[in-house]
Amino acid sequence: MDAVKLEQGIAALRSLLGDRLSTGQSVRQQHGEDVSYHAPALPDAVAFARSTEEVRQIVRICAAHTLPIIPYGTGTSLEGHVMALEGGISIDLSGMDQIIEVNDADQDCRVQAGVTRKQLNQYLHDTGLFFPIDPGADASLGGMAATSASGTNAVRYGTMRDNVMGLTVVTADGRVIHTGGRARKSSAGYDLTRLFVGSEGTLGVITEVQLRLYGIPEAIASAVCSFDSLEGAVDSVIQTIQLGVPVARIELLDEVQMDAVNRYSSLDYPVSPTLFYEFHGSPAGVAEQSETVSEIAADNGGANFRWATKTEDRNHLWQARHDAYYAALALRPGAKGWPTDVCVPISRLAECILATKEDIRAEGLLAPIVGHVGDGNFHLVFVMDPADKDELARAERVNHRMIERTIRLGGTCTGEHGIGYGKIADLEAEKGDAIGLMRQIKQSLDPDNIMNPGKILRI
Amino acid sequence: MDAVKLEQGIAALRSLLGDRLSTGQSVRQQHGEDVSYHAPALPDAVAFARSTEEVRQIVRICAAHTLPIIPYGTGTSLEGHVMALEGGISIDLSGMDQIIEVNDADQDCRVQAGVTRKQLNQYLHDTGLFFPIDPGADASLGGMAATSASGTNAVRYGTMRDNVMGLTVVTADGRVIHTGGRARKSSAGYDLTRLFVGSEGTLGVITEVQLRLYGIPEAIASAVCSFDSLEGAVDSVIQTIQLGVPVARIELLDEVQMDAVNRYSSLDYPVSPTLFYEFHGSPAGVAEQSETVSEIAADNGGANFRWATKTEDRNHLWQARHDAYYAALALRPGAKGWPTDVCVPISRLAECILATKEDIRAEGLLAPIVGHVGDGNFHLVFVMDPADKDELARAERVNHRMIERTIRLGGTCTGEHGIGYGKIADLEAEKGDAIGLMRQIKQSLDPDNIMNPGKILRI
Repeated sequence: MDAVKLEQGIAALRSLLGDRLSTGQSVRQQHGEDVSYHAPALPDAVAFARSTEEVRQIVRICAAHTLPIIPYGTGTSLEGHVMALEGGISIDLSGMDQIIEVNDADQDCRVQAGVTRKQLNQYLHDTGLFFPIDPGADASLGGMAATSASGTNAVRYGTMRDNVMGLTVVTADGRVIHTGGRARKSSAGYDLTRLFVGSEGTLGVITEVQLRLYGIPEAIASAVCSFDSLEGAVDSVIQTIQLGVPVARIELLDEVQMDAVNRYSSLDYPVSPTLFYEFHGSPAGVAEQSETVSEIAADNGGANFRWATKTEDRNHLWQARHDAYYAALALRPGAKGWPTDVCVPISRLAECILATKEDIRAEGLLAPIVGHVGDGNFHLVFVMDPADKDELARAERVNHRMIERTIRLGGTCTGEHGIGYGKIADLEAEKGDAIGLMRQIKQSLDPDNIMNPGKILRI
Repeated sequence: MDAVKLEQGIAALRSLLGDRLSTGQSVRQQHGEDVSYHAPALPDAVAFARSTEEVRQIVRICAAHTLPIIPYGTGTSLEGHVMALEGGISIDLSGMDQIIEVNDADQDCRVQAGVTRKQLNQYLHDTGLFFPIDPGADASLGGMAATSASGTNAVRYGTMRDNVMGLTVVTADGRVIHTGGRARKSSAGYDLTRLFVGSEGTLGVITEVQLRLYGIPEAIASAVCSFDSLEGAVDSVIQTIQLGVPVARIELLDEVQMDAVNRYSSLDYPVSPTLFYEFHGSPAGVAEQSETVSEIAADNGGANFRWATKTEDRNHLWQARHDAYYAALALRPGAKGWPTDVCVPISRLAECILATKEDIRAEGLLAPIVGHVGDGNFHLVFVMDPADKDELARAERVNHRMIERTIRLGGTCTGEHGIGYGKIADLEAEKGDAIGLMRQIKQSLDPDNIMNPGKILRI
């Protein structure tokens, strides 16, 4: 980056934004790191945008001065997506927090990119509608679209890819593009919406998101079941899905994670592979689903079924699941977490997890496993001392072997965390020649490589 | 196209394919037309491919001689997708009819592009699995992916966009690319799969398709209900979806279409707006869905509910729906059909249909309406004499106004038929500046514009 151009660009941005252009160290620091183990990389300045038009002007100034642009929502990504690897301008979209419209009859809404999922669901509360995608963090919906987020509900409601109907995007040359629309389906031209979903800011800045919504289910029930083997738990999931039971959530926690959850939340679940379920539907439908699933579980070595239908009990149960990450960290005071995820065809899930657990054991690491098991997606958290180079190297080996194994089993190097700059080599290993096509698209839409450079692809 | 290059290209293809390269008039004629009203446009030759490797060699020969390439499945598209507008080589993929693998536990399969949906479902019969997407015609799965097909089941099971997990594609420069994979979800890089789904052969030739499958439901029930108004029928659909009833099909036929169906199939349904339903699930679940829906219908002026749970009765009922097109044509012996479709937010559906019906009346046309109404998608069939220039002009006016209206109401110029060359101007009206982005992608992946030229975009 040219120092003179940088200075000129920042001056132009300051005259556009005034106080909303910050070069202060603490603001830059905050925008140069996510919640992962990746080292921070600070932008040269942070631009706080309030409208699509303002983002367009910011992008035009950056393009004119060839300055890198890094879109920033809540900074809760996990593979270094927001790190300013080559400096440049972080565009903070959190001030774009307007819910533009909610269409009850059509069950859709349009929001600015900075609206978070919890903000949206709070707003929707009285409409009887909700937005189901729940990646854990209270991420911005623009960021969730950009990273193709999903989470515990995806087995029933799909991922952001399935639930983003359209986008407003500012392209690298400062055009404002509207993709998709409000129709439930369309065969009209190339699917630009899904090209931008998961593009991690490398093709444009998402400023508005049109989303599908769902009716809040009449009845919700949850359950927890312990299994005497991981295979039994996974086989239960396979049979449940084969029978077409529309489970809303079906989460696996291994015995290491269950031990952590018990300690952290003062619970007394058996320390063995465990499934957490949630059922949505009519009261009769939920009762029927629950019964079917408990029978399947019993056939596969499941025991200690615990039901929860009251909101309070359900919340208690799921709080334990949602606290899994902090519970894992609490196993080793002072340690940091390195979360990583892969996704395999569900028939290979038990095999992939068991081989990975054997690797963790052999390398002497602490790494609880949780999984969105209905999708074949599971997460490791290496609970470690990042200053310990040897421990880091061992974790890297386990991660690398897990991804190799996943690809060999027909899976993908990340089910929901994305590539960022942490998994570029893994993406290349997985996709082979298709990387060339991604690179062609990137080069045609961002020839100067100013959009979040150093992420997804090596240019 | 250069005549010398064409001759050289055909010679090279003949030496590759022998008898499987045809320049005969009748074969060219057959490959230069679809089932729409669009005028045929013949390719210079038809290449019958048997493998991805063979397609790659054909594409390389065409690329070397700058010959247009038109992928051909079953020729059942509706907007001129297969017409060889600039001549060139039609690649017939119907010989690529191998079902490569079916994975029961994972509910997915991989097929060559020429496998048709009926062939796949026949093959799956004993596995308890099925592939739900049903556009009416027994189309090839490669063609269905290329055109982003959907149909009556989309309200529950989604479209091809939701059910294609991955593709093998031969690009314009003759590379073989594998997109997607067998994992149920992935955040790994740009979503090339969904870029190719719906690209209508303009970015590459699809040679293999990985598909999601579903368990055959334990119970299936169907029903027909007549309404005293179109608004009542549409409001029933809106309320059914708002309540989260997972209907598998919910189809609207207007009174003109019902009259046609009665005459064609010797039935005696009331000649009024009518909904055809199908419910999938457990026996108790189906019973509950049916009950809820019949109450909603009754609240909205629905009457004459007829149930069908026996396979034979259901087939009879749906046969009437599937024969709608032929029933429409039979209203006017000797006439041809011009089918067109649009898709609007469901809250605007009654308004859009009623205004369109008024237009049809004012222009003195015969055009029954059917709709995949759960998605807000409806179809007109202009039943007309295509030799009558005045009648054609009147139909064009109605179609044009319907699409204008649809776009104004937040909808899309085609829900499932695609753009082909029939709706290029409509796509431009709908997408605005996003067309520029589509063009950039097309130019970067197919700089010589040899892949199905003249479709989707004006280059």
